[in-house]
Amino acid sequence: MMKFRILAVLALVGFSAASQVDTDKAAVIKSIYTEALGEQQGYEWLKYMCEVIGPRPSGSEAANEAARWAKVAMLQAGADTAWLQEVEVPKWYRGPEWSKAYAGGVPVSLPTTALGGSVPTPKEGVRAEVVEVGSFEELEALGREGVEGKIVFYNTYMDHSLISTFNAYGGAVKYRWAGAMEAGKYGAVATVLRSVTLLRDDLPHTGAMSYGDSEVKIPSAAISWQAADMLDHLLGKGQKVELELFLDCGVQGTATNYNVIADFKGTDKADEIMLVGGHIDSWDLGQGAQDDGAGCAHAMQVPSLLKEVGYEHHRTIRVVLWANEEFGLDGAKEYANWARMNNVHHWVALESDGGAGVPRGFGVGASDEWVEKVKALKPYFVPYGLHEFAKGGGGADLSPLRGYDNVFIGFRPDSQRYFDFHHSARDRIDAIHPRSLEMGSASIASLFFLLDAL
Amino acid sequence: MMKFRILAVLALVGFSAASQVDTDKAAVIKSIYTEALGEQQGYEWLKYMCEVIGPRPSGSEAANEAARWAKVAMLQAGADTAWLQEVEVPKWYRGPEWSKAYAGGVPVSLPTTALGGSVPTPKEGVRAEVVEVGSFEELEALGREGVEGKIVFYNTYMDHSLISTFNAYGGAVKYRWAGAMEAGKYGAVATVLRSVTLLRDDLPHTGAMSYGDSEVKIPSAAISWQAADMLDHLLGKGQKVELELFLDCGVQGTATNYNVIADFKGTDKADEIMLVGGHIDSWDLGQGAQDDGAGCAHAMQVPSLLKEVGYEHHRTIRVVLWANEEFGLDGAKEYANWARMNNVHHWVALESDGGAGVPRGFGVGASDEWVEKVKALKPYFVPYGLHEFAKGGGGADLSPLRGYDNVFIGFRPDSQRYFDFHHSARDRIDAIHPRSLEMGSASIASLFFLLDAL
Repeated sequence: MMKFRILAVLALVGFSAASQVDTDKAAVIKSIYTEALGEQQGYEWLKYMCEVIGPRPSGSEAANEAARWAKVAMLQAGADTAWLQEVEVPKWYRGPEWSKAYAGGVPVSLPTTALGGSVPTPKEGVRAEVVEVGSFEELEALGREGVEGKIVFYNTYMDHSLISTFNAYGGAVKYRWAGAMEAGKYGAVATVLRSVTLLRDDLPHTGAMSYGDSEVKIPSAAISWQAADMLDHLLGKGQKVELELFLDCGVQGTATNYNVIADFKGTDKADEIMLVGGHIDSWDLGQGAQDDGAGCAHAMQVPSLLKEVGYEHHRTIRVVLWANEEFGLDGAKEYANWARMNNVHHWVALESDGGAGVPRGFGVGASDEWVEKVKALKPYFVPYGLHEFAKGGGGADLSPLRGYDNVFIGFRPDSQRYFDFHHSARDRIDAIHPRSLEMGSASIASLFFLLDAL
Repeated sequence: MMKFRILAVLALVGFSAASQVDTDKAAVIKSIYTEALGEQQGYEWLKYMCEVIGPRPSGSEAANEAARWAKVAMLQAGADTAWLQEVEVPKWYRGPEWSKAYAGGVPVSLPTTALGGSVPTPKEGVRAEVVEVGSFEELEALGREGVEGKIVFYNTYMDHSLISTFNAYGGAVKYRWAGAMEAGKYGAVATVLRSVTLLRDDLPHTGAMSYGDSEVKIPSAAISWQAADMLDHLLGKGQKVELELFLDCGVQGTATNYNVIADFKGTDKADEIMLVGGHIDSWDLGQGAQDDGAGCAHAMQVPSLLKEVGYEHHRTIRVVLWANEEFGLDGAKEYANWARMNNVHHWVALESDGGAGVPRGFGVGASDEWVEKVKALKPYFVPYGLHEFAKGGGGADLSPLRGYDNVFIGFRPDSQRYFDFHHSARDRIDAIHPRSLEMGSASIASLFFLLDAL
């Protein structure tokens, strides 16, 4: 009797992974990975987006070219419907940009890029003394007396000790977002920021900034890690350092971009929608390969992979490629509004917007019941190296659906290298590893297969 | 009572991870990672090995320069003793090498490299008809009739469907190792091989081959993946294809290289040795950054990291950088012989020879008791992304110690990209990701800390 009780408890709390794996389903998953790793269709699509179309910033014609191309690709892949949803977005313009540091000797050029949304400098540029701060607290301590008429240099860092680089990003990005707004309050004439990255290289990384409701709008730029080191070094000598900054950039009204929406109908539960998406826009530096061409490739590949292995899904798989995530989530908001107006609910919605690294797991932003449902599938994924199944997650483009829909999943690739490329000229197809990308597509397709087959 | 029983069973089978973690020890581990990720000492060392010293093939003076440099670096890092152990190794020479395919039109140049140990071609090269095989079985089926006087093209692949690329390598490398030996039996005049890699690029990958006891020695080379695709394509047209191969290469007697052996004495169990090592030699293409400069950097960093966080180890930590792993394990054999003769036993021996990828875990080649001991430490590593703690492992350089010592551990970094670089010109410092490398050093140092503190 005791033996029976122990077994019963074991069954409740300690069942082996093997008992949770259905061998037929495991075989389908093996086929999905084998298909992805062999054919590399996602990589070929991503290569086209990067090399033929190129960067796809908010308001660009390239973003529209990508949307039209993706629509056709989805129809060719067997979509029952695919259409383009108009989205009004800010039109971002970037022209020449540079800065030079003056510290007595020959002026030193610093790799420089305007933050997204920055106003331009005057045509003659802006030249002023540099004052360095390591935090908003230091800025506040300097006050108007220490800042007025100067260029504020945010020598702020991502915390290298954090293993999740997304957490490290979260702690540092406020200086990019609000640095100009805060410095403007004290009369600064411009800001420059140590690029928000962990790679100690010489490329500047852009990204969105905001003036909030402030009427004071000062030019704001990022400089490379190495340039920040040099500026810090020059300032550390105790001498006066001036910076000359020139930015030709700005938001030039609005333009029309498009969300791509492609439906692959389910057999008997076609009304239940399984959404998988990424954002089709990118920053203008690089090619938007990791951010978020990879997510688009992942999403586009899901229905194809299921088709190739002969799985007929009960539910409708909807691929959505959102316009303008980077500069205000316009595509995501437009899509969510449309869904609400048409009473379209999503049984599950997954976004891939963490790059093309080796898959590590999924984050589930849903009820505990759903979290457990997804966690119970982990034994299928462990052989493929996915171990992280956690509560919490989704993606920026899913956020406008929160409170309306209930099940959000974020794909989690390895994050160690993501911010090396992020928003910089390094974010190119050359830095995409085909196998890792394809393992991502296969992981998402496998999760959709398992959920649909539940 | 039932409640008590359930709790007892839970304690046996389902204890939580948290209960296995000592918070003081977890804090030390956090310090180790933070130190590694901040200072990046291993990356600086590796950069020196790659950029200043360069490739370190068997018998080269560069291998000796690296050994002398590493000895000094270890003494500067606080080693109590560091010395160079002489190792007699084959002296490998590589001169010009090329091949051209003739299929009617303009000859097509194929990126080509001699396999390590190949004899050279005659000075006028060798030109013959190509016959393609996909396996030794196909070679055998062709027999002497189909092979004699021809160049055998091994169009063999790593299995892309295997998630462990080391397993995929294991299945394909026999054609590199024994391809010339087998083809020679049937009168082939040379062999070329699709490079043993998963990246579909245009660089050839070298690596050791063997003629076994055969007196027939035919030249043997690898061609790039894309060249193999092209050759396969030309042959697929049903036309006669000839290949002209020129290899100036060979083993030119022997030379003296060195093992580096550096001891950092323990406080009260100095006789118990914890060995951590990598091999200092590399192939001659590239810089030997992943294979195995990274392993050397990992090993060299372990005592420094423990010192920086203020941990005084009970046992002696011995850093060993072996000579000539690639071309016959001479350094490992010499070290093992010396250990046996001097009755030196190792309490534990760990090798890092899987590159600088993000750490995924450890393989433990030891008694079940030891395997469980290491597996019990997994909860300390999960926050750093290490989930794979498996029985079985070690490293090629530890193999001569098997049967003499009993506890071998292999460090397991992510393997997805390793064979992209492996034995090719791509294996350079540029392809090393500093954070991933440093996380490897920190992972090994943390394991040594936990084991030593048991």
